[in-house]
Amino acid sequence: MRDQYYDQLDSIVDDLVAMTSAVQTAVHEATDALLNADSAAAESVITGDKQIDISREVIENRTLQLLATQQPVAGDLRQLVATLRMVGDLERMGDLSAHIAKIARRRMPDIAVPDELKPTIAEMASVADRMIAAAAKIVAERDIAAATDLEAEDDEMDTLRRMLFRTLLSESWAHGVEPAIDIALLGRYYERIGDHAVSVARRVVYLVTGEVPAPVH
Amino acid sequence: MRDQYYDQLDSIVDDLVAMTSAVQTAVHEATDALLNADSAAAESVITGDKQIDISREVIENRTLQLLATQQPVAGDLRQLVATLRMVGDLERMGDLSAHIAKIARRRMPDIAVPDELKPTIAEMASVADRMIAAAAKIVAERDIAAATDLEAEDDEMDTLRRMLFRTLLSESWAHGVEPAIDIALLGRYYERIGDHAVSVARRVVYLVTGEVPAPVH
Repeated sequence: MRDQYYDQLDSIVDDLVAMTSAVQTAVHEATDALLNADSAAAESVITGDKQIDISREVIENRTLQLLATQQPVAGDLRQLVATLRMVGDLERMGDLSAHIAKIARRRMPDIAVPDELKPTIAEMASVADRMIAAAAKIVAERDIAAATDLEAEDDEMDTLRRMLFRTLLSESWAHGVEPAIDIALLGRYYERIGDHAVSVARRVVYLVTGEVPAPVH
Repeated sequence: MRDQYYDQLDSIVDDLVAMTSAVQTAVHEATDALLNADSAAAESVITGDKQIDISREVIENRTLQLLATQQPVAGDLRQLVATLRMVGDLERMGDLSAHIAKIARRRMPDIAVPDELKPTIAEMASVADRMIAAAAKIVAERDIAAATDLEAEDDEMDTLRRMLFRTLLSESWAHGVEPAIDIALLGRYYERIGDHAVSVARRVVYLVTGEVPAPVH
């Protein structure tokens, strides 16, 4: 019985890593949809989001069942509590990817991002991608040193978001209100994806050390 | 010992209700800051957000301690698991209120919201206010019928957000890009506050029934 329990605990970690990887794909495809007006990519993200929601439910239910039936203590208890939080973050990252894909889809066949902002958006997407990859590795290997590195990426995301807003608010902005709103929301979505990646990493710190780090803003 | 344990469980519910009430005040003051360029209200929300973060930590730590030391089962376990989720939602609602207050503060002594949009923003704030009050009551009384009613308010919030965007994107919008971005983000923040209120209510449904409702989008 105990062996089966530990198998279940391990398989929850595998599921979390798989869910993180699904989210990474979603962000990647959403960016593709956005920067290349790729409608197949947009549809894939929007449909795939339902699958991410289902993964959340499945992992959550299995975690709750283990909590209820096994009465775990110490590290095992922390792993299950951390899992409940991480699936919430991952599900939100999937939602945010779908929001990005929907903005892309609404402008098709045009591209929602004006040429001069494509490099900044591409860079935000690439920071988000690195952050999610790091989060997946942190979850899989319980590497809490890497969790600290993730915060530096988050600072870069903030810098990029500020650059984005400077362009939107500059005298030379010639695209009017609607694209400006799209870009402002896109900036916010990528930034939030990064915040949730940091949050996932912090759950691992809690899982390993038992200390709850300060919340992400 | 068991009596003390039940006292602790009850006191966690009291703390959740108090935290919900602090969030309701924050949203109210943030709206006041926004619609009346009231700088004292803005500062109160921004400072108060730190207090909401601390409440989250305190409730979270006490909940984790009970989970670890008492090995609760069934309803008690669900209450503690639901609490961990609810404090996350409530903390986010506090953050979103602070985001609203910061937009208000950045435009002072001007008012960030153009006259023609004040009624819509005021109505969104009032829907948010009702939703948080309902969530507090649902948490205090475990009233799961009221949790279903909350979803109707959420639909109204969506309608208001769409109205807001229609105005921003209409030919007659004469305020330029910067206020449009502010308003788009404000619309998003109020909408997310409503989503989190629904989410808090759904945690109570889980707590009472043991069923995890579908996630909020």
